[in-house]
Amino acid sequence: MRILVSNDDGYFAPGIAALAEALAAVGEVTVVAPERDRSGASNSLTLDRPLSLRRAANGFHFVNGTPTDCVHLAVTGMLDHLPDMVVSGVNHGANMGDDTIYSGTVAAATEGFLLGVPSIAVSLVSKAATDFSVAARVATDLAERFLRMPFRQPVLLNVNVPDRPYEELAGVRVTRLGKRHKAEPVIRGVTPRNETVYWVGAAGGAADAGEGTDFHAVANGYVSVTPLQIDLTHTGQIAAVSEWVGR
Amino acid sequence: MRILVSNDDGYFAPGIAALAEALAAVGEVTVVAPERDRSGASNSLTLDRPLSLRRAANGFHFVNGTPTDCVHLAVTGMLDHLPDMVVSGVNHGANMGDDTIYSGTVAAATEGFLLGVPSIAVSLVSKAATDFSVAARVATDLAERFLRMPFRQPVLLNVNVPDRPYEELAGVRVTRLGKRHKAEPVIRGVTPRNETVYWVGAAGGAADAGEGTDFHAVANGYVSVTPLQIDLTHTGQIAAVSEWVGR
Amino acid sequence: MRILVSNDDGYFAPGIAALAEALAAVGEVTVVAPERDRSGASNSLTLDRPLSLRRAANGFHFVNGTPTDCVHLAVTGMLDHLPDMVVSGVNHGANMGDDTIYSGTVAAATEGFLLGVPSIAVSLVSKAATDFSVAARVATDLAERFLRMPFRQPVLLNVNVPDRPYEELAGVRVTRLGKRHKAEPVIRGVTPRNETVYWVGAAGGAADAGEGTDFHAVANGYVSVTPLQIDLTHTGQIAAVSEWVGR
Amino acid sequence: MRILVSNDDGYFAPGIAALAEALAAVGEVTVVAPERDRSGASNSLTLDRPLSLRRAANGFHFVNGTPTDCVHLAVTGMLDHLPDMVVSGVNHGANMGDDTIYSGTVAAATEGFLLGVPSIAVSLVSKAATDFSVAARVATDLAERFLRMPFRQPVLLNVNVPDRPYEELAGVRVTRLGKRHKAEPVIRGVTPRNETVYWVGAAGGAADAGEGTDFHAVANGYVSVTPLQIDLTHTGQIAAVSEWVGR
Repeated sequence: MRILVSNDDGYFAPGIAALAEALAAVGEVTVVAPERDRSGASNSLTLDRPLSLRRAANGFHFVNGTPTDCVHLAVTGMLDHLPDMVVSGVNHGANMGDDTIYSGTVAAATEGFLLGVPSIAVSLVSKAATDFSVAARVATDLAERFLRMPFRQPVLLNVNVPDRPYEELAGVRVTRLGKRHKAEPVIRGVTPRNETVYWVGAAGGAADAGEGTDFHAVANGYVSVTPLQIDLTHTGQIAAVSEWVGR
Repeated sequence: MRILVSNDDGYFAPGIAALAEALAAVGEVTVVAPERDRSGASNSLTLDRPLSLRRAANGFHFVNGTPTDCVHLAVTGMLDHLPDMVVSGVNHGANMGDDTIYSGTVAAATEGFLLGVPSIAVSLVSKAATDFSVAARVATDLAERFLRMPFRQPVLLNVNVPDRPYEELAGVRVTRLGKRHKAEPVIRGVTPRNETVYWVGAAGGAADAGEGTDFHAVANGYVSVTPLQIDLTHTGQIAAVSEWVGR
Repeated sequence: MRILVSNDDGYFAPGIAALAEALAAVGEVTVVAPERDRSGASNSLTLDRPLSLRRAANGFHFVNGTPTDCVHLAVTGMLDHLPDMVVSGVNHGANMGDDTIYSGTVAAATEGFLLGVPSIAVSLVSKAATDFSVAARVATDLAERFLRMPFRQPVLLNVNVPDRPYEELAGVRVTRLGKRHKAEPVIRGVTPRNETVYWVGAAGGAADAGEGTDFHAVANGYVSVTPLQIDLTHTGQIAAVSEWVGR
Repeated sequence: MRILVSNDDGYFAPGIAALAEALAAVGEVTVVAPERDRSGASNSLTLDRPLSLRRAANGFHFVNGTPTDCVHLAVTGMLDHLPDMVVSGVNHGANMGDDTIYSGTVAAATEGFLLGVPSIAVSLVSKAATDFSVAARVATDLAERFLRMPFRQPVLLNVNVPDRPYEELAGVRVTRLGKRHKAEPVIRGVTPRNETVYWVGAAGGAADAGEGTDFHAVANGYVSVTPLQIDLTHTGQIAAVSEWVGR
C-alpha cells in the first residue's frame, strides 16, 4: 500500500513524524508537507506563484505552499503512482464541528479525496499535545483496515483522537460534525510602532455537542470518525429559495 | 439596510468597485477587503500574526489578510452593528461546481453566514471580465429582495452571472453545484536560477453539468443561485462507515 | 524629464501621492510601488517567485514585491526609456543614521542608482505624519535643480525633511549619516493561542548626532541631504586584516 | 567561545549544517536561522508582525523571519549572553561585488556587527554546490584565529571560498568588493492562468574584477576576505553636493 502523508503544521512537526513512523508498518510512506506552519489554511490553493519541492535530511519533502498545494503537487506532479491513501496529520489540536472548514489538516485529506484517493485526516484533541503516538496508532489501525477490507465508496474521514493512552480509549464512534457557537471577537493589540492590530480570536465553544456528534464522542473518550462529503449544496433549501426568487 | 462588502481579488479590483457602487442604492455600504489578490484562499484564517486595517482614499478598508479574515474582523471588531447582509464579489471568474471549496469569494460570504448574517457570493462567469455592472446589478436585485421580503432561514447564496447584457439574461435558476473532472496536473517550469518549480494547473472541466446544476444554468444564459450549507458531514455514509469500522 | 517614483509604504500611501503630484510639475511621472507596506524591506529582491504588475484606478502601478523589485522591474522590463531620475518616498518617518540600511525607501533609490539613474530617497521626519506636501516640494526642488544643472557624477541622495511648513525650513545641509545606539531588545508577547512571539523593537537613539550629521541637521530645522555610495568595503581595514590573517 | 550561526538559505540547508558541525570544534554553537529560504533578503527586518521561534529535532532554532530578524531576535531576546561571534552561511553561491547589498547571508553577519559582535559571512562560490565542508573549515580557521588573537576593532568579514578541495586552495587574500555590470533584465513569463509575470534576472557579470577584488582572488583560487563597513555616506561627494545644492 502506498500512503501519501501530509499535514498543516509543517513538515518538521512532531505529529507528522509520529504518523509517518507508525504508517511505515503498513505501507510505503511518502511525506509531502508545508515548509512552514499553515494552520488555518483551509483548502487554499496557491495560484499566483509556482511551488518548489525540496527534500529534508530525513527524507520528508516540503513545499512552499499550503496543505492542499502539497497533496495536489504530490499526486499530479511528483508521485509515479496514484497513492492508495492520503493520511493528513497528526494535527496538534482538534478539528471538530463547523470549525472543520478552516482546517488545513482536513483540507489536505480533502484534496486527496477530490483527486480520487481514500483519505483520512487525524487530529489529537489536546492543547498541550506532546505524545502523538496514540493518534498515529489509531490512524494506522484505520489504514490497515482499508488494506484488509477496502471501502466500496470514495471515502474522506475526519478522525479526532482523545489525548489519553491507547488502552484507555473507549472505542470508536462514527459521528456527525457538531456545531460551535460563534467565534470569539478579534483581540485588539498595539505594536511597538504604535499601530493597532487585531488577532483572530478563539473558536466558539460547542453549541451542538449532543449524542452523535464528534464533540460528544471525544468528550466520552471515544475516537470520533466523521465521514465527510464536499458538496456544499443546501439541497433542503432549493425549493424555498426557488419560491423566494420567483416571487 | 447595512451591507458589508468583501471579495478575494483585493480591494482595488474593478469587481468590488462596481458592486459597492450598485449596492449603495439599496443600503449603507462598508467595504472591507484583502489588500492584495487572494484568489484561491478558501476559508483560510490568519492565526500566526495579527491583522491591520487601513482605509484607502476612496473610503474602502483593506486588511493584510484573507477574505475570511476581512469579514471576521469587520463583524467582530470594527463595525458597531451586525450588518444585515454580507455580499462578496464581484469575482473575476466563475465559482461553480466542487471548485467552490477553493473560492475566497464564497469563503467571505461563508464567514458572514457563520457569524449569523445572510450572505451572498457573486461571480462573473468570464475569463476576460471587463464589465462587472451586470453582475453587480443582479446582486443588488437580490439584496433588495432581501430587504422587501426577508428569508426566514439563515441563508448563504452562491450566485454566478453569465457575461452578457442585463437584458439578455435568460432569468434566474436555483441550482445545485455541479461536479468537475479532476484538476489538470501541475505544470513544471524552470526559474532563471535553474530551479524546478510547479504551477497549479487549471480546474477540471465540468463532469456533472446536467439539468439542475450551476454549470447548466449559466451555459443556458441564466443567473445561477445555489443555496449553500456548511455541514460537511456525509450523513448518507454514517451507517456504512459504522458497519465498516465495527467489523 | 522622465521620473520614476516608488516607495516602501505601498502605492496607496499618502506620501507617494503627494510626491507624484508635486513632481508632475517638473516631469513625466510614472509610479511603480509595492502593493503592500514593505517598510523595513531593505534591498531585498524577490528571487523565488515571479512578480506581477498591476495598474490602479489612479494610474499608479503596483507590484507584489519589494521596493527594489519595483524599480528593477520598471527599469528593466516595463519602461520604454531609462528614466532620468528615480525618486522614492515620501516615507512616513525618518531614514537617518546607520538605520538607513534597513530602509526600503532608500533601497528603491539605490536600485535606481545601481541601474545608472540619478536617484533620491525622501523621508518625512515625523511619527504622526499627516502632511507630505512640504517634503514633496523639497524633492521637487531637487529634481528641478537636476534638470537645470545635471550633476556630473552618478548620484544617490538620501533626503530627510523636518515636519514643519516650507517657509519655516532653515535651509539645506549636506550631511553624513549619524550613528545610532544599539536597537532596543525584541518585545515579548503572547498570542491568543498562547504562543510566545517577539516583536522587533524600536531603533536605538542617536549616538553620533554631532555637527555634520543628518540627525543634527534635522534637529536644527534643516533639510538633510546625504550623498550615499554602495561600496561596503572597509578600505581602512584592509591592511590590518591582511596583517591579522597573515599572522 | 560562544558562536551564533545563521544563514539565508534556511535552517534545513546543508550549508548551515556543515558550518555548525565544523564550528562545534572551536566553540559552543547556537543555530538560529530562517524557517524558509530567504535568499535575496538583504537587511530586511520584519516590522508588521511578530516573530516565532521554534526548535527543530536536531536542536537548530528557526524563525519565521529574515536572516536579520534571526540574529536580532537571538541576540536581543533569546541568548543569555552576547555571543563572541556571529557566523553566517555557508551560503550556496557567491556573495561578491556590489551584489553583496542584496545578500541575506551578509545581512545576518551585518546585524551581528551592528549589535557589537565580530561577525563573518561565508559563501561557497559554486552554482552546483554539494560539498560545504571546505568553506565550513575555512570559517572555522577564521573563528579559531579570532579566539587566539582577537582583532582590536569591531570587524565584519565577507568571505568567499572557491569550490575546490581544502588542499588546493591557493591561500587567503584580503580584498575589496569588485563591481558588476548592470543586472540582466527581468524575464517575462506567462502563468497557466494566462497572466504576465516577471522573474528577476541574473546578476550582471563582473565589471571590475581586477587585482585586489574579491572576484580576482576567487578566480585565482584564493579565499577572499573582504572587511566591510556599514556607513553608506559618500564622503568624497559631500563637498561637490554641497556646492551643487548651494548654487
